[in-house]
Amino acid sequence: MSESTQEDVYFAHPSRDFGKTDEAVRLRKTEDGAELTYKGPRIKTSAAKAREEITVKVGDALSAQRILERAGFKEAHVVAKKRATYQLDKLRVEVDVVDGLGEFVELEVMTESPERAASLLEMARAELGLNKPEQKTYLELLLDKKGK
Amino acid sequence: MSESTQEDVYFAHPSRDFGKTDEAVRLRKTEDGAELTYKGPRIKTSAAKAREEITVKVGDALSAQRILERAGFKEAHVVAKKRATYQLDKLRVEVDVVDGLGEFVELEVMTESPERAASLLEMARAELGLNKPEQKTYLELLLDKKGK
Repeated sequence: MSESTQEDVYFAHPSRDFGKTDEAVRLRKTEDGAELTYKGPRIKTSAAKAREEITVKVGDALSAQRILERAGFKEAHVVAKKRATYQLDKLRVEVDVVDGLGEFVELEVMTESPERAASLLEMARAELGLNKPEQKTYLELLLDKKGK
Repeated sequence: MSESTQEDVYFAHPSRDFGKTDEAVRLRKTEDGAELTYKGPRIKTSAAKAREEITVKVGDALSAQRILERAGFKEAHVVAKKRATYQLDKLRVEVDVVDGLGEFVELEVMTESPERAASLLEMARAELGLNKPEQKTYLELLLDKKGK
């Protein structure tokens, strides 16, 4: 099991409404360093959710944030959480305690067979007694809560 | 003396004309890794040129470029050069061979006293026989050459 504290800063684009285009630019700060991520619009699939994600490690969070701000990106939202990660063979379980939202569990399976992945996820979900699936992102949940 | 090959990719901003605002976003690729830099407008000072520069190391150039492109930045220009760097105490001499432009020498002094810096630079300039000062950036020189 590994634990980390993550602070995610989401940025507004200088000329595009990321809320409408369903994109995101996120700077994540952890004890191990920082990374910059672009998330593309969600693609609807039969079972799970899918979206393009491109991530690059950055040397330090402060400089990355200053570059983004000089280029017209504005800090829009911050999502802070503590994450405990359990890796059980092909199954990864992430338990997040999100500031202002509470506790969430994310299940991820690394496998090349979608059918095998679906059945593994279903087994794990039932075993852990997880009955309230959540499709929204933490950012969306926080915005909902704020009454946006 | 250290030598490196540098490929600089300059990006156009999604909604701002960097040519007019005198800013730049540059992704530099070298053998040692990649870095992203924001350059602010040049500030006129009596002697030397000054501008804000913020740089952050990035884990890999390709991912950084893809994130920029997804966010609407477009590759605008590439400046490639070989740079030999000589460090002589407080004086740094950089000899650049720039693709399409030729050879240039840059002198830099690290000191807290502007007067001391100016006299050191002048000594080095005279000693090296450098008589054709160039204020423009390589990018500007390349654009001039292309006839814009």
